[in-house]
Amino acid sequence: MRVGVIGVGDVGSAVLELSTEYGHTVTAVADSKSATIEPEGVNVSEVLSTKRTDGVVGSDDPKEALEGPYDVLVECTPTTLDDAEPGFSHAGIALQRDRHVVLANKGPVAERYRDLKELEAESDGTVRFGATVGGAIPIISTIEDFGPDRVTSLRGVLNGTANFILSRMATEGLDYEHVLAETQDLGVAEADPSFDVNGIDAALKGVIIANVLEREENLSLEDAEIEGIENLPGSMLDLAQKDGRTIRLIVEVTDGTVRVGPRLLPKNSDLAPVGTRNAVGIETESAGQLNLSGRGAGGVETASAVLSDIERFSK
Amino acid sequence: MRVGVIGVGDVGSAVLELSTEYGHTVTAVADSKSATIEPEGVNVSEVLSTKRTDGVVGSDDPKEALEGPYDVLVECTPTTLDDAEPGFSHAGIALQRDRHVVLANKGPVAERYRDLKELEAESDGTVRFGATVGGAIPIISTIEDFGPDRVTSLRGVLNGTANFILSRMATEGLDYEHVLAETQDLGVAEADPSFDVNGIDAALKGVIIANVLEREENLSLEDAEIEGIENLPGSMLDLAQKDGRTIRLIVEVTDGTVRVGPRLLPKNSDLAPVGTRNAVGIETESAGQLNLSGRGAGGVETASAVLSDIERFSK
Repeated sequence: MRVGVIGVGDVGSAVLELSTEYGHTVTAVADSKSATIEPEGVNVSEVLSTKRTDGVVGSDDPKEALEGPYDVLVECTPTTLDDAEPGFSHAGIALQRDRHVVLANKGPVAERYRDLKELEAESDGTVRFGATVGGAIPIISTIEDFGPDRVTSLRGVLNGTANFILSRMATEGLDYEHVLAETQDLGVAEADPSFDVNGIDAALKGVIIANVLEREENLSLEDAEIEGIENLPGSMLDLAQKDGRTIRLIVEVTDGTVRVGPRLLPKNSDLAPVGTRNAVGIETESAGQLNLSGRGAGGVETASAVLSDIERFSK
Repeated sequence: MRVGVIGVGDVGSAVLELSTEYGHTVTAVADSKSATIEPEGVNVSEVLSTKRTDGVVGSDDPKEALEGPYDVLVECTPTTLDDAEPGFSHAGIALQRDRHVVLANKGPVAERYRDLKELEAESDGTVRFGATVGGAIPIISTIEDFGPDRVTSLRGVLNGTANFILSRMATEGLDYEHVLAETQDLGVAEADPSFDVNGIDAALKGVIIANVLEREENLSLEDAEIEGIENLPGSMLDLAQKDGRTIRLIVEVTDGTVRVGPRLLPKNSDLAPVGTRNAVGIETESAGQLNLSGRGAGGVETASAVLSDIERFSK
């Protein structure tokens, strides 16, 4: 497949590297200011090296990359809320050109699901977005394979940073502020970890799942009930521990509602992973509860979900 | 899709029921002695009721069902070893007719993988067999989506009966013979549970996974190193427990080798599920370890994996 990549952060860079490894040809790369378009195939390592040294990916116009010679456009720009721009328009241009789209950017699927589906319906291209939820854990594809009508609910941990903080608070008996600082030093939390700790990142993923399950509902972030972990006192975790329990930031998707908040769980619950791992339980109509867990974030992990989505187009 | 079903045991019966629910048309049903062929659609509840009362599924010839008007043939006859007959020939006839095949029968994929792949290569039909490993847990499809080249190994519990017995021995401190009898009373173990407790059922699943991972290798049961749980003294479980560990019948697939045997695991390991559940860890090149767990057997669970495979044909 000829792959175009928009956005060259951690995920975009890893997508560029993995695409070549998987035998695809990268024909267009763009960040917000620059682009390289090469119908015969971009030299990926050169582009990544230029990005590191000069902060640009080439001398072409990013707008032209969207009109470039790709079969699949991979959208890896940062998630934005509300109108989900510019990610939404990037996906729209590719679909209008009858090309496939793979989203690593949560915005368009969480905030404008119906608009996106309408553009897809008019296009010969298809949108896939497995990478937006749970990194390499095949959550969306498992729901699709089962059939969304046969999944009754989903529950679990979908933010690795919040999970890491809660795991550390529980094992070390430390307070939120202390562990957060430590987490930033370790590079686990970003400089601005607001979306991770206030529950918005987890809620966006919950909304995406709800949109897949409900199809016609078109939920967005404002439909989710969200509570973060910023105000959770360390003493709550101590209390939980005395009862063989622990606390995790849990996403619950059921009957078209999305709720995110700290919840008590048995200490060894399958839905209380340790560290940055994610874990979900998918409740099915005929096959009971399926649990999936693994690395829910990270450039390479997310990129490998993008590549799985690309593989599904070629089948 | 027009679905033909061969074999009307627990799995076949559930496939008949679910196929209708999923909107497919069942056009042919056969057990070993009888068949019903109906291009406009078999009356599934009538067939199942006749099977219960009279022990037959209709008045047609089972051989003709294989030549019937289906798009997908679902093979649910009992797993047989060595030449994997008659399941193998059933799949072969459908492929020669350029029809798709879904196997719930492990024999053809575990014992004659290369033969099956050769027939598939000459056919316009495709073979899928997600239901042969782990019931409704999407093990095969997750490996396929990742790309078999990017999965380095797999480890876990793939036999629910053995797992139930070991769980009970650990929690109740009872001996193997005692728990086995109890397990049969509960209907968890079959009247002849040999393949479950001697490791052969788990090894067949391991061989199927190895065939998917290695592609060219064509492993069969005789390539697996197998140890069962029949000779495991209850005292071993006590000993394990004193050290915070437990024992499970573990399948290990790595570098084209398949090993099955009792292994020590941390008591709360993700790969030591309780009761009849199955759990596997899939080690990937770029995305770390993915854990999947759920109900690994049962008519409806296995049938829902069959239906997921059928859905993949229609994409």
